[in-house]
Amino acid sequence: MTNTHAIVIDKVKESKIAKTDFDNLTFGKTFTDHMLECTWRDGEWQSVEIKPYGPIEVEPSCKVFHYGQAIFEGMKAFKDATGDVFLFRPEDNWQRFNASAKRLAMPEVPEEIFMEGLKKLVALDKDWVRYGEGLSLYLRPFMISSENGVAAAPSTEYKFMIIMSPAFAYYKGDVRVIIASEFSRAADGGVGYAKAAGNYAASFYPNNLAIQEGYQQVIWTDAASHEYLEEAGTMNIFVRIGDSLFTAPHNDRILNGVTRRSVIQMAKDHGIHVEERRISVNEIREAAKDGSLKEIFGSGTAAVIVPIKGFKHKDFKYELPQLDDSYASRLKEALKDIQYNRAEDKHGWRVKI
Amino acid sequence: MTNTHAIVIDKVKESKIAKTDFDNLTFGKTFTDHMLECTWRDGEWQSVEIKPYGPIEVEPSCKVFHYGQAIFEGMKAFKDATGDVFLFRPEDNWQRFNASAKRLAMPEVPEEIFMEGLKKLVALDKDWVRYGEGLSLYLRPFMISSENGVAAAPSTEYKFMIIMSPAFAYYKGDVRVIIASEFSRAADGGVGYAKAAGNYAASFYPNNLAIQEGYQQVIWTDAASHEYLEEAGTMNIFVRIGDSLFTAPHNDRILNGVTRRSVIQMAKDHGIHVEERRISVNEIREAAKDGSLKEIFGSGTAAVIVPIKGFKHKDFKYELPQLDDSYASRLKEALKDIQYNRAEDKHGWRVKI
Repeated sequence: MTNTHAIVIDKVKESKIAKTDFDNLTFGKTFTDHMLECTWRDGEWQSVEIKPYGPIEVEPSCKVFHYGQAIFEGMKAFKDATGDVFLFRPEDNWQRFNASAKRLAMPEVPEEIFMEGLKKLVALDKDWVRYGEGLSLYLRPFMISSENGVAAAPSTEYKFMIIMSPAFAYYKGDVRVIIASEFSRAADGGVGYAKAAGNYAASFYPNNLAIQEGYQQVIWTDAASHEYLEEAGTMNIFVRIGDSLFTAPHNDRILNGVTRRSVIQMAKDHGIHVEERRISVNEIREAAKDGSLKEIFGSGTAAVIVPIKGFKHKDFKYELPQLDDSYASRLKEALKDIQYNRAEDKHGWRVKI
Repeated sequence: MTNTHAIVIDKVKESKIAKTDFDNLTFGKTFTDHMLECTWRDGEWQSVEIKPYGPIEVEPSCKVFHYGQAIFEGMKAFKDATGDVFLFRPEDNWQRFNASAKRLAMPEVPEEIFMEGLKKLVALDKDWVRYGEGLSLYLRPFMISSENGVAAAPSTEYKFMIIMSPAFAYYKGDVRVIIASEFSRAADGGVGYAKAAGNYAASFYPNNLAIQEGYQQVIWTDAASHEYLEEAGTMNIFVRIGDSLFTAPHNDRILNGVTRRSVIQMAKDHGIHVEERRISVNEIREAAKDGSLKEIFGSGTAAVIVPIKGFKHKDFKYELPQLDDSYASRLKEALKDIQYNRAEDKHGWRVKI
């Protein structure tokens, strides 16, 4: 094929949208009319196809089932009051997608396939992006190895796909966390910084143990000492001690979240002292005891900004104070104002479809 | 369904075996006539189906593509001179499969499904097990999450499958390895001990770097210090210093290989002093310098026993001596004698189909 990567579009005969009950959605269960698919074979990306969302046929020997080369991104499209649709920092997701691809020995996806494909797909299904508080279209670009065969080696064939699911603001209930002291999410020199499917599978069992104890999530700590906070698997973590905000520096164990980077920038814009530095569990426990621990919150594309109500570390339990003007709520409002085109976009984060 | 898990068999109309060129097989590319499939849904295993090997249909939102819950086992069936077919320590694989399942928050597979299903499947396709030096049928039981949906949580549905591929003895060429000093395979408190698909995906990029330098594999070291040997991803590692044999103790980072355990037992049977203990890279480099480092070899189901010809660690390179009567060749012959029913099976490792 040529390098222009022409996009072939095959539209659905009849949209599912009229039959979709937008008031009763389960997160990630309903998909829009179309999806994007592009195959990497013989060392290059083949034609880009946008076609009706539907099943794919794979052999049981398909390498992704056996050796787990699978990466993804989570993004959202937002609609403003006038009906215009925007992506939020999509270049950041594309760059991280390719960083994940490299670490998992998968081919990088060129910008014209990822970005032009995404824009065309969102434009085609733009009626699925609803306007309203907390509403968005969740975008899921992902790549899987698709060669058939069980030899333990990188695949010679891959599929890049984008699927999209209407999302809503929902009250998740209070979130309390266990700070990990036994299990780990990532190793130094490993793949923790990549959005690799296997990282999530590895977190489910310890997370289930936390749920059984009445907690909703795990904040991971470093595997070597379990003394320093890392992230929460689907969220980066911010800690407010006194009036300062801290988050762990990103490294090869910690995902460099797009929402994380936005929170850091917005905190600076609001005159909040914010630092990327190691945060020890001991420091948090001491700050809890002397009353200087004001807030802990998570940040992520799906979760947006989620205040943590309480935590447990070994035998130490703590309930965070309820603040009238928390950094979490202030920054969440500021983020939504940018995403929904209600505020000036001084960092150039919005991309209009 | 009832607890008896009746196995439903749908045979192929015409076998592919006559069209299969057994003299020109690529490892893991050719599959037998039948496969086994069993779905876990609504909290229980549904009916067990043995049916023609062929593609399955899955939605692009299938959770295995996004969150990587996928585990497997590697096993082999052997044929003896009289045409009888044997499995090798299959109970060990079943138990490890369920240990992997537990760590990945997946349902355990009952013995009657795994073992009876496997035996029926091998019996049905027993003509695909060829008799001859190094020939075997490679068995691949695996499980994937199969719920549709992109919410980051354990799947509510799983597929357990077994596929089988005729395998042969092949000369892999000399194997030289890089001992890792930067990248890691597994974290303390992580999933390194499980046969999780994501562990393999994580190893491909560093392994590709080794290949680019002219080496074939990586021997992983501990992520915390990179000072102690772990395993080689598809093989456990044995080191012979003087007349003693050492292998790293299994822990939550290192797979407890069935071939590894067999090698340890056979070494004891042969009066070889064998120890499971930590082996530092420094110890190996010192032993190389003073000449006491006699052998390094890998052990695994697919690889059997593979002598390592040389290694590199940082700027230190070493070529192992060529021994006339190496432990590797002695133990490999002993292992094959048991597997092919040419020697007494005093530990009860063979299971006749």
